[in-house]
Amino acid sequence: MSIEGEFGGPRLGVLGGMGPMASAWFMVRLTALAQAGVDQEHIPTILWSDPRVPDRTAHYFGHGADPWPWLEHGLRALRSAGATAVAIPCNTAHLWYERMAAATDLPILHIVDAVVHDLLRQGVRDGTVGLLGTEATLQSGLYQSALANRGYVHIELTAEEQAQWPSRAIAMVKANKIDEALAPAVQAVKLLQSRGAQAVVLGCTELPIALPAAQRSAFQMPIADSIDALAKDSIAWYQRAVESARAAH
Amino acid sequence: MSIEGEFGGPRLGVLGGMGPMASAWFMVRLTALAQAGVDQEHIPTILWSDPRVPDRTAHYFGHGADPWPWLEHGLRALRSAGATAVAIPCNTAHLWYERMAAATDLPILHIVDAVVHDLLRQGVRDGTVGLLGTEATLQSGLYQSALANRGYVHIELTAEEQAQWPSRAIAMVKANKIDEALAPAVQAVKLLQSRGAQAVVLGCTELPIALPAAQRSAFQMPIADSIDALAKDSIAWYQRAVESARAAH
Repeated sequence: MSIEGEFGGPRLGVLGGMGPMASAWFMVRLTALAQAGVDQEHIPTILWSDPRVPDRTAHYFGHGADPWPWLEHGLRALRSAGATAVAIPCNTAHLWYERMAAATDLPILHIVDAVVHDLLRQGVRDGTVGLLGTEATLQSGLYQSALANRGYVHIELTAEEQAQWPSRAIAMVKANKIDEALAPAVQAVKLLQSRGAQAVVLGCTELPIALPAAQRSAFQMPIADSIDALAKDSIAWYQRAVESARAAH
Repeated sequence: MSIEGEFGGPRLGVLGGMGPMASAWFMVRLTALAQAGVDQEHIPTILWSDPRVPDRTAHYFGHGADPWPWLEHGLRALRSAGATAVAIPCNTAHLWYERMAAATDLPILHIVDAVVHDLLRQGVRDGTVGLLGTEATLQSGLYQSALANRGYVHIELTAEEQAQWPSRAIAMVKANKIDEALAPAVQAVKLLQSRGAQAVVLGCTELPIALPAAQRSAFQMPIADSIDALAKDSIAWYQRAVESARAAH
């Protein structure tokens, strides 16, 4: 095998930095969830973490610079560096999913699909799902149609509650105040549960950091973590890609 | 400012994957230790995480493939993708430091310098320092001359203890058995402390994962964590680079 061939093969590109802790934590979970006994069995990955991408939520609501040129630049950088598929650990960035998919020939895993896969894996096949995310993710309907199509009923917080709880938790994580993010994240999940949610989606990648796994069991309810869900779909992609590369030889 | 200029500026390249959890954790710490209030104030970074790099320690002892072509390829990939400096969260890979520095025009931060800076920051200016790392890092003398030059006395475990404690902790982290890595890591630090170490260097980037920060205070002794140390030096590099880019305008 040539050196170039040796360095080749499936390689995951991660369009990250949105925010930087979410994409760093994605790398941790991608590693921890992989079936690997030694370094060499883990997944070759390139993380493009450019936290300067303008705020996705602000732009959606008509304030601030357009993130699109930054998303496009990151996709191009990942492709040139040798990525063969892309994962994006930022839910709000998926408002540009169709445009990104049209701008690159690399397959892009969709975080909403990954979350639905995770709900099914956790045995949640119907019923009421509470939805948490940024204001832009929720207002855009990114999750709602996917959940409705699968037969789930979805519920959300009011605009006032959104500002008070999940948006605050998200901002605290982005400001490196992770301890202060816990209480508002807990409050957001509690409210949805009190209104009938039988499962909750952490549909912003700052929320799994605000509400770490150890704090979730108290709810005695399935919680779909969009970072873990995307990591699991990325691992499944890699396994399929390695198998089809082998089959082609 | 042109789009190309807007995307430019200082960008940290991380030559990672050695192991993958160490470089993922480096990204977490680089983010957590940065002074940033919103996403856009964090450090633009590219992580090249190729865990297929052949085992550095095995090759040093004459077994297994040469990691060099993989290190060179990773450096080249980081440079093409726009990195303006390189950090390598793997101590053993620094056995190739001179060769890497000669192969690229990017500055490469040195992890041993970063650890010495961290010892000084923690007020450890002399005395006996216990040294933990892979067998190859220790036998190569990577740390010993740097510590001796600064006036530190260094002590190490015996070959038998090395195999039983730190090497086992390192292998457990690489195999995703992080819980099983704690006891041998604790034992290694305890032995060095019982023999007079006034501070201990975790000179392998799997060891800070084996012995998390919360478990270190029991030793009541400064512990230099090579991941945190390299993250702090990377943040200092970025601040200097941003300032000199500003001054040039």
